[in-house]
Amino acid sequence: MQLNKEKTVSILQTSGEPMSLNQERSNDDNSTVLFLSELFDELFPICRSITGAGLRQSLELFGRHMPLCIEKVPSGTAVFDWTVPPEWVFQRARLTGPDGTVLADSEVSNLHVVNYSVPVDIRCTLDELKPHLHSIPELPHAIPYVTSYYKRDWGFCLPYETVQHLPEGSYHAIIDSDFIDGCVDIGSCVLPGESTAEVLLSTYLCHPSLANNELSGPLVLLGLYQRLALWPRRRFTYRFVINPETIGSLCYLHLHGRDLQATMVAGLVLTCLGGPSQKLSYKFSRRNNSLLDRTVRYLHQHSSIPLELRPFEPAGGSDERQYCSPGFNLPVGQMARTVYGHYPGYHNSLDTKEFMDVSSILRSVNELEDLLQTIELVGPFRNLYPYGEPQLGKRDLYPNLNGPSTRVNSADEYVDNRAQLTRIMNILSYSDGDSTLLDIADRCHCDVMKLQPIIEKLEKNGLIVHDYPRRVVQ
Amino acid sequence: MQLNKEKTVSILQTSGEPMSLNQERSNDDNSTVLFLSELFDELFPICRSITGAGLRQSLELFGRHMPLCIEKVPSGTAVFDWTVPPEWVFQRARLTGPDGTVLADSEVSNLHVVNYSVPVDIRCTLDELKPHLHSIPELPHAIPYVTSYYKRDWGFCLPYETVQHLPEGSYHAIIDSDFIDGCVDIGSCVLPGESTAEVLLSTYLCHPSLANNELSGPLVLLGLYQRLALWPRRRFTYRFVINPETIGSLCYLHLHGRDLQATMVAGLVLTCLGGPSQKLSYKFSRRNNSLLDRTVRYLHQHSSIPLELRPFEPAGGSDERQYCSPGFNLPVGQMARTVYGHYPGYHNSLDTKEFMDVSSILRSVNELEDLLQTIELVGPFRNLYPYGEPQLGKRDLYPNLNGPSTRVNSADEYVDNRAQLTRIMNILSYSDGDSTLLDIADRCHCDVMKLQPIIEKLEKNGLIVHDYPRRVVQ
Amino acid sequence: MQLNKEKTVSILQTSGEPMSLNQERSNDDNSTVLFLSELFDELFPICRSITGAGLRQSLELFGRHMPLCIEKVPSGTAVFDWTVPPEWVFQRARLTGPDGTVLADSEVSNLHVVNYSVPVDIRCTLDELKPHLHSIPELPHAIPYVTSYYKRDWGFCLPYETVQHLPEGSYHAIIDSDFIDGCVDIGSCVLPGESTAEVLLSTYLCHPSLANNELSGPLVLLGLYQRLALWPRRRFTYRFVINPETIGSLCYLHLHGRDLQATMVAGLVLTCLGGPSQKLSYKFSRRNNSLLDRTVRYLHQHSSIPLELRPFEPAGGSDERQYCSPGFNLPVGQMARTVYGHYPGYHNSLDTKEFMDVSSILRSVNELEDLLQTIELVGPFRNLYPYGEPQLGKRDLYPNLNGPSTRVNSADEYVDNRAQLTRIMNILSYSDGDSTLLDIADRCHCDVMKLQPIIEKLEKNGLIVHDYPRRVVQ
Repeated sequence: MQLNKEKTVSILQTSGEPMSLNQERSNDDNSTVLFLSELFDELFPICRSITGAGLRQSLELFGRHMPLCIEKVPSGTAVFDWTVPPEWVFQRARLTGPDGTVLADSEVSNLHVVNYSVPVDIRCTLDELKPHLHSIPELPHAIPYVTSYYKRDWGFCLPYETVQHLPEGSYHAIIDSDFIDGCVDIGSCVLPGESTAEVLLSTYLCHPSLANNELSGPLVLLGLYQRLALWPRRRFTYRFVINPETIGSLCYLHLHGRDLQATMVAGLVLTCLGGPSQKLSYKFSRRNNSLLDRTVRYLHQHSSIPLELRPFEPAGGSDERQYCSPGFNLPVGQMARTVYGHYPGYHNSLDTKEFMDVSSILRSVNELEDLLQTIELVGPFRNLYPYGEPQLGKRDLYPNLNGPSTRVNSADEYVDNRAQLTRIMNILSYSDGDSTLLDIADRCHCDVMKLQPIIEKLEKNGLIVHDYPRRVVQ
Repeated sequence: MQLNKEKTVSILQTSGEPMSLNQERSNDDNSTVLFLSELFDELFPICRSITGAGLRQSLELFGRHMPLCIEKVPSGTAVFDWTVPPEWVFQRARLTGPDGTVLADSEVSNLHVVNYSVPVDIRCTLDELKPHLHSIPELPHAIPYVTSYYKRDWGFCLPYETVQHLPEGSYHAIIDSDFIDGCVDIGSCVLPGESTAEVLLSTYLCHPSLANNELSGPLVLLGLYQRLALWPRRRFTYRFVINPETIGSLCYLHLHGRDLQATMVAGLVLTCLGGPSQKLSYKFSRRNNSLLDRTVRYLHQHSSIPLELRPFEPAGGSDERQYCSPGFNLPVGQMARTVYGHYPGYHNSLDTKEFMDVSSILRSVNELEDLLQTIELVGPFRNLYPYGEPQLGKRDLYPNLNGPSTRVNSADEYVDNRAQLTRIMNILSYSDGDSTLLDIADRCHCDVMKLQPIIEKLEKNGLIVHDYPRRVVQ
Repeated sequence: MQLNKEKTVSILQTSGEPMSLNQERSNDDNSTVLFLSELFDELFPICRSITGAGLRQSLELFGRHMPLCIEKVPSGTAVFDWTVPPEWVFQRARLTGPDGTVLADSEVSNLHVVNYSVPVDIRCTLDELKPHLHSIPELPHAIPYVTSYYKRDWGFCLPYETVQHLPEGSYHAIIDSDFIDGCVDIGSCVLPGESTAEVLLSTYLCHPSLANNELSGPLVLLGLYQRLALWPRRRFTYRFVINPETIGSLCYLHLHGRDLQATMVAGLVLTCLGGPSQKLSYKFSRRNNSLLDRTVRYLHQHSSIPLELRPFEPAGGSDERQYCSPGFNLPVGQMARTVYGHYPGYHNSLDTKEFMDVSSILRSVNELEDLLQTIELVGPFRNLYPYGEPQLGKRDLYPNLNGPSTRVNSADEYVDNRAQLTRIMNILSYSDGDSTLLDIADRCHCDVMKLQPIIEKLEKNGLIVHDYPRRVVQ
């Protein structure tokens, strides 16, 4: 399976400078990596949260390269069991020690302030301050990432080596923030396909300066958007969603959950898709046997894409927790590479561009494009001539003369013809709306991608159709 | 798992002297054993049959300790493929030898007469007598228990050592019995629960002086009645039935079969629950995957209660044969300890109080109470907030501040919190009306009873409900 | 299991001389083999094709021994995706070499001409001739069997040893044939049974002088017809079909496909049932769990009939490809002995009577009769007294006296009675319309044929009925 795609990418954008994954249409990946790297550098310093200016600015940067439509859900809206919080307006936070040393400054790192901190401007003793300080003893140099979205609180995050040696005395904590009636912003766009049946690709954008567990997801999403836009055909419609984690997917389900239930055939939450891990890591959907679950299981068995598998579990993860909640139970899995919680830099200042590595982003784009190309192929298909065998001879798909050496030039050609005929007959026999092409490939003892040219030939001859519309309606 | 319950038992009775399982509210089981022992001694000598005075007298003795309602089905009533037989009125039976020796006398043992014998008063030769004599060559000292309910016959049961040495000569067989229009009596009572969904506990009372294979069942049933009456809550309604075997359960199904089909979630026939076996022995219901079947399988796997498993089979057993007949196919298993047919004293005079051992009755009560407490817990439950995750933070079930050392005092506390959160999230995700709490416990890698406090917390917060009413209606 | 049936066979015929499988009602198989051998000799020389006089003459010969009804589908009829071809009228074909030697003559072997050849009368060079010559290099002495039904072509089939040494020069190819508006002929007959639910036995008749892969199928079909006609009862109705391969079964489905969907419980395509293989070879139906599939799997597990199993596959085989096409998906398997493609003589002049061996035809008849007798028995049956156990005592199926040595004369008799009771109770409990008698036999740990006398006793007592009508309707 080829990882370095030799492709030119069209430029699709809503505003700003024309850019593309392969701006100079080169035959290597250098320009793509450069493009992703520059976009990363613009995004990384922005102080994002689940609402507010940082989120909007970040969505605007992605909107330059894909036609994002922005939907807004106002503060105070009841969203299932939740309420959309007020918007957090943050200017600056600074903590000064007894001797005037600046211990934490959001201008230095926006991780220093607890995200969604209430405004404060107080002087206090070390003991009064301590409940508001956060650090990681096991990682003494790291600044942790802490949030308090739904309970009013404030705090500073510092390296443990700093916290450990703080002297007694008077500290000055100043956080210049505010809460206003605002909204949650969600960006999305659609690449239409031959069918209205949809594949959802969803990722989040709400953490401040973090790399693998923040920017890797939207960057891979953008890469996939640009790749899929170039496909000569898309059987499915593809929906791309970027939203703040949890509250964002809840809002999206609030707006579109019923539609997704009606149209979605597969979904994937993209998270932590950079870092040093050599294998993609798939978390199954709650259904555990969705089209995507079965395809990933197949690819794993056949080693087509290096993959690790994780069972569905509802207690950890990302927005698939909302998509897979039992009322919706959508067929949404989650794809990661260097998984949250499994690397030291998770949710702290060690999660940097160097750790993430832009080239691993490109690799994720390549492998996920391969996965989606397989999804396009798995069907199920439906035989339009199900009563008796269709007459293949009149379509030049079957030898008209039936004899020992019919129209073949060698034993090899005979074996090839025989294999092709076996594949044709199996596809026709099992294109009954139940069997996927994965099942049929197993019956033919061949890789599913080997069936692609036959599928296209049978489609062209009007013998089979992709059966997704009927499946989605059920 | 604790076997010695430290409980006080309320006194529920319809008549007679106040009695209870733990009359003196002692902290040990001595008074319970004493109570059961005294009740046994009252019941044992009574000459019971499937109809008549012995059955009624026995039901009356149980009725002193549980509020039995008595239903009567008259002789001659068509009950499915059967007809309720006339009532057997038995006074006395005696067999005298040629030399005047009394060889068998129902005053000595009521096993000496074939149950349901027609009246006779004849003198006959040994050869004429022999077809009417029953004994067990393998157990020369035992008097067998023989019945002929539906074909008019008569006979005497004697030890083989007696039969073997009978001299030629004239014998005098006298059986003072009669058949009258009467009825089959069935005793039952109900402990109502939060739901009308029912658990049936059924046992039989129709054998004369036998211990393990007669009195053990009703004694355990009584013990369970008194225990369950004390439970602070019962999710299910519990129905207790005492009837003569086979014809009694057929009559009960005749009267209430349709209701049981509508309301029953689990059922258990109690038989042979005393004796020396260390393990309870469960015979699966014909369904093989009822709530009770799955719970027992789970407890067996997790060794929570010492249990042996027997597959369902229709050719041997007790009233589950009727409850599980294919037209009803009720979810009724059978529980025994020292199983019928697997001990020498089965259906003969060796089945005594000493063999049965009253303390093994108490042990059965304890273990079955544990089983029923598990049944109460297995659900399935239903998540009332199935769209997206419910917001646990506002209910203090989830940390509001999301950071590395949030509100924990130690690594152990973190692990505990993490495990608790995993359990909460799994219960919410899989409380979809399909998964039982046994399945969820397996997902959480913990014993199902560990989920009890979380279930109660989630019920209190209005997040889940026990889903049995919907299940029963389907 | 007995292979040499000692039976007399009734004589059922539509015309001609009275004949039968066991004409002289002898106690051995000699006369059967003689009968089959003589019929073979009449059939073998006929130049058959998928249409025309050879097919009609062959059907007429079978019609002398079974009451075949002939249906005709005219040339030009649209049959699903196919069109019935014009009828091929063939007189003679001859190929003469440069020196006047006759290289191929249809009077010598009707395999010499490509079946459905257009008329030709030309002189040509060796190079011009070569595309019209067919041979098998691996079998230099064999004449291959070649057809071109749906594309107009012509050709000669010769041993490779002849083709190899052909000299340059002028050849004379003459084929006297014609195409006329005619029809496809299909022969069928029915043996009615207690139910209208049907078992289909289908075979083909369209190859010219070939033995195992042509005449073995119809000969076995005839043998089975004569055997089944003698059965004292048939629970199912049996339908026997002889048609030209592929187009014939397509035509039959065109005429009767909907009816077959409504009434068929099992079907079998008969092909290649002679030859040296010791085992029958079963190809499963596309359903893979039809009544017949399950029965064959059972017989294979229990080694009742020597059997090899082949999975269903749609690319090779016979008319089951049409019957099992996904729109019909009929429960049709295929039975062979020495399987097509697995012996050197397949589709060439080495497939002779000597290779086929008439006694192997008789063996196939015997074993298939055993299989069909099992099919008759597997049910499912339905208990007519499903509420509670039926009272067996009043029907003398259960001991009325319940005691230690009740009415038995020995321990062996007790065990026999116990086993019989177990079988009765299991049949009653599981005759619920879902379980087959194969499942019940497994529960009883006995061979299914051991249940036959009990089934008949329970049917006679009105306790159970064969449940096929309800099953077929669903």
